[in-house]
Amino acid sequence: MIDPAKLAAALRDFRSAIGADNVFDSDQDRTAYSDHFSPDETRHQPGAAVAPANAEQVQAIVRIANRHGVPLWPISRGKNFGYGGAAPVVRGSVVLDLSRMKAITVDEHNGTVLVEPGVGFFDLYDYLRARKIPLWLSVPGNSWGSVAGNALDRGVGYTTYGDHAARICGLEVVLPDGGLVRTGMGAMAGSPNWQLYRNGFGPGWDAMFCQSNFGVVTKLGLWLMPEPETMAGIDFEFDAPDDLGWAVDTLMPLRRAGIIQQAPSMGNWLRSAAVMTRREEWTKDPAPLNDTVISAIRKRFNIGWWSVQVRFYGPAEIAAASMAVLRRAFDKQPVLAMKETHWQQGDPPEGSPFSGVPVSFPLANANWHGGRGGHIGYSPVLPPRGDLAMDQFRRTHALYEKYGMDYHASFAMGERSLTNVNQLLFDRDNPEMMTRVDRFFRDLVADAHAHGYGEYRTHIEYMDLVAATYDFNGQALRHLNQRVKDALDPNGIIAPGKSGIWPGRWREKQA
Amino acid sequence: MIDPAKLAAALRDFRSAIGADNVFDSDQDRTAYSDHFSPDETRHQPGAAVAPANAEQVQAIVRIANRHGVPLWPISRGKNFGYGGAAPVVRGSVVLDLSRMKAITVDEHNGTVLVEPGVGFFDLYDYLRARKIPLWLSVPGNSWGSVAGNALDRGVGYTTYGDHAARICGLEVVLPDGGLVRTGMGAMAGSPNWQLYRNGFGPGWDAMFCQSNFGVVTKLGLWLMPEPETMAGIDFEFDAPDDLGWAVDTLMPLRRAGIIQQAPSMGNWLRSAAVMTRREEWTKDPAPLNDTVISAIRKRFNIGWWSVQVRFYGPAEIAAASMAVLRRAFDKQPVLAMKETHWQQGDPPEGSPFSGVPVSFPLANANWHGGRGGHIGYSPVLPPRGDLAMDQFRRTHALYEKYGMDYHASFAMGERSLTNVNQLLFDRDNPEMMTRVDRFFRDLVADAHAHGYGEYRTHIEYMDLVAATYDFNGQALRHLNQRVKDALDPNGIIAPGKSGIWPGRWREKQA
Repeated sequence: MIDPAKLAAALRDFRSAIGADNVFDSDQDRTAYSDHFSPDETRHQPGAAVAPANAEQVQAIVRIANRHGVPLWPISRGKNFGYGGAAPVVRGSVVLDLSRMKAITVDEHNGTVLVEPGVGFFDLYDYLRARKIPLWLSVPGNSWGSVAGNALDRGVGYTTYGDHAARICGLEVVLPDGGLVRTGMGAMAGSPNWQLYRNGFGPGWDAMFCQSNFGVVTKLGLWLMPEPETMAGIDFEFDAPDDLGWAVDTLMPLRRAGIIQQAPSMGNWLRSAAVMTRREEWTKDPAPLNDTVISAIRKRFNIGWWSVQVRFYGPAEIAAASMAVLRRAFDKQPVLAMKETHWQQGDPPEGSPFSGVPVSFPLANANWHGGRGGHIGYSPVLPPRGDLAMDQFRRTHALYEKYGMDYHASFAMGERSLTNVNQLLFDRDNPEMMTRVDRFFRDLVADAHAHGYGEYRTHIEYMDLVAATYDFNGQALRHLNQRVKDALDPNGIIAPGKSGIWPGRWREKQA
Repeated sequence: MIDPAKLAAALRDFRSAIGADNVFDSDQDRTAYSDHFSPDETRHQPGAAVAPANAEQVQAIVRIANRHGVPLWPISRGKNFGYGGAAPVVRGSVVLDLSRMKAITVDEHNGTVLVEPGVGFFDLYDYLRARKIPLWLSVPGNSWGSVAGNALDRGVGYTTYGDHAARICGLEVVLPDGGLVRTGMGAMAGSPNWQLYRNGFGPGWDAMFCQSNFGVVTKLGLWLMPEPETMAGIDFEFDAPDDLGWAVDTLMPLRRAGIIQQAPSMGNWLRSAAVMTRREEWTKDPAPLNDTVISAIRKRFNIGWWSVQVRFYGPAEIAAASMAVLRRAFDKQPVLAMKETHWQQGDPPEGSPFSGVPVSFPLANANWHGGRGGHIGYSPVLPPRGDLAMDQFRRTHALYEKYGMDYHASFAMGERSLTNVNQLLFDRDNPEMMTRVDRFFRDLVADAHAHGYGEYRTHIEYMDLVAATYDFNGQALRHLNQRVKDALDPNGIIAPGKSGIWPGRWREKQA
């Protein structure tokens, strides 16, 4: 799809702009930047990659790409596993790898940070600890990735700062024509308010650069949680699948009222088993795990059919009062087990993502089936009601059964919504399974759509599929996005196809 | 500036589209829609007004306006006093008055509402009370206005839901070409998640329609606070101007830590005096009020030089614990007076904006000087530090003195910022005073800009002045806005000049 002569010419110019050492176009390089969770890594394989050192070099690269009509696929650290990793929607695109850009500027007093895209959660964690800065991260389940990239893709974490996109405060962005803007208060030169006040004056742009292809974010402001005096919480275990309904209805009023301020995620037994063990340890039967195996798993890990963790952060007396309210809410409810947890300043670090410590072990679930493993995420949003959660569980569970897959799901409780995060675990060396996974995924999206539920995020392979489910008034919002895309990126060089947004010249090819 | 023949032709078409009864173009009508706080109401006087009944009629009007090249100035209820009221930036524009659109759809279970722009705070309050729906509003100081319009202009209120723009969840918008989009989950036809999940899939648009002219919002989703079990708080009084600094430094850590979740606003003695009395009751001296008068005012209203109110909402034990933390923070601090307040479910309504009850009496401050009064708002954002607040206070106070005006200001404490809201009260029948106010305002903006502080919102007369202070990289963000404007509104018919964003054909005229 990309003209080899144009690509070669662009690569020459990239090399002269940023140095040959930072342009990668060997077969090995192309493999390195492909989607390692894909059954066919060539399907979304890039043509090359370029790794600029700073915003000026990003501007230079963008201008060169415009000149040659070569599409760029910006990645922060390329660890977006389950959603495509580093790989572009359009095969042959040049990956714009920002992982060398690693500047960190912390405002300790105000609890904010300005990060470049190459800063990973481990980097930022180490930075804060080395300087004894009492600010906590909110980290996602797998913390390999980029702080900025995760926020821009609307990743989520475990603390009260877990809605990462909502804590963005001010961006620096290279526009598709190579121009540079700063959003919010950064739109005023030298303003001390860039990371402090989100709205700025006039239209608010920060969310427009989330899950989008309107520009390349080169700096991102983010609010960080001041280290709390205490953290307290309860780990709940539930015995039966049907407990999901009343548990949601018990927790959501506390969530809506702002008493619980993080997003508790109620997940099933496979969450633990898939990370800690392999499927072959439990059974040789390829059919979805039966109740005997499920019981064995639950016994080994001492967990319920569902588990959920709730955490409070703050002064001891407020956390204690919040805990009392939480216990009262579950009074006389048939909870299988409740385990309290308490941490206070001066205690050794608690060590879990609930206190903002980065982790990467959940990634081990890719090994569940053996072979070269992988997973893909399916994450529709639904109203936060127990009955609808049960419906969603039953329908989705039936589809897992139909396609012979082990059920792996959680329901994350937002302030006004549930996100039903499903992991489809697979062995990508098993072609029959991979065909099943693809049909399964398409069925899941159709099922969600039939109920008016949309996915909040999706894999590069399915971006058009999911975008098409946003169908109000003939996909009016997608058309609006594409008008803005054409205005800002007339040559269509930034991430064509991202979130189903195609530049004009690519739309013509498809038509 | 608007061709009378084109206006006449457009009015004919408006009449045939929505009925002659809903098109207003008498002299009296033009006066009714002008800025009643302006010394010269003709300066921003509209050419006419049209009042559609629904989104379809808005679409028809927008298409007619495109045909004739006549600019529209959308207002919700037109009560944006201090910022221009109903009046357009461009004289002769047709006011698009949405006040007839008054539909309300409440989701009691989830605590959300979908409102049309004509719904005022009093309307929504009455609606909820009549149906005994236990949801609280967050209302601004003057609650005459529109719930949607206030949120879109980034108005603020007193409760934990006081950052109104941050509680928007999903919009319906008529685009400048007459097309209709729904944002967020509303982009999926019939989705039950429209008011429940804000981000949708792909770029987030809600903030793009705030303080902007990219479209006409015809429906706005908003989250409402579930009625809390209790409300508790403390009214603080401080004796000296210098108390501002340490009070900010005492409250902000609680604000950043999420212990105080509303935005306490620390304001001076004139806040009460200007609403309850007139200047002539205190002095005949036109010079800024001296310490003797200030002491008399403080004595009469039993207030400090500064006052601030803090409120907590929630279960009794959490509110009590929060109150203990707050009292501890002020322990041994030289507070002049602290008055506790407690309300719980079952008590008679508390009756203040702190419990979401709409009020309009603060508008009385326009009568301070006598004559036909008015005020204008000057509201820069600054970092939330006591020393910077004191600097800001001293510099601004000196400018009030220089221009012979009575100091009227507050510092509203956001999660990471202070907004220094100043009211410039005047008698618009006093031309000498009005000239002073204009020079004073321009000096204030220049002073803020010199410190890197931008206004979060401004009067129609000063939109270009303030927009120009957002000067990073040659006003790059303004140029970006204008590129989007040109793409969406090639004929430049929606609110030209709003927030300093001018469509191409108007920019050419100005050049």
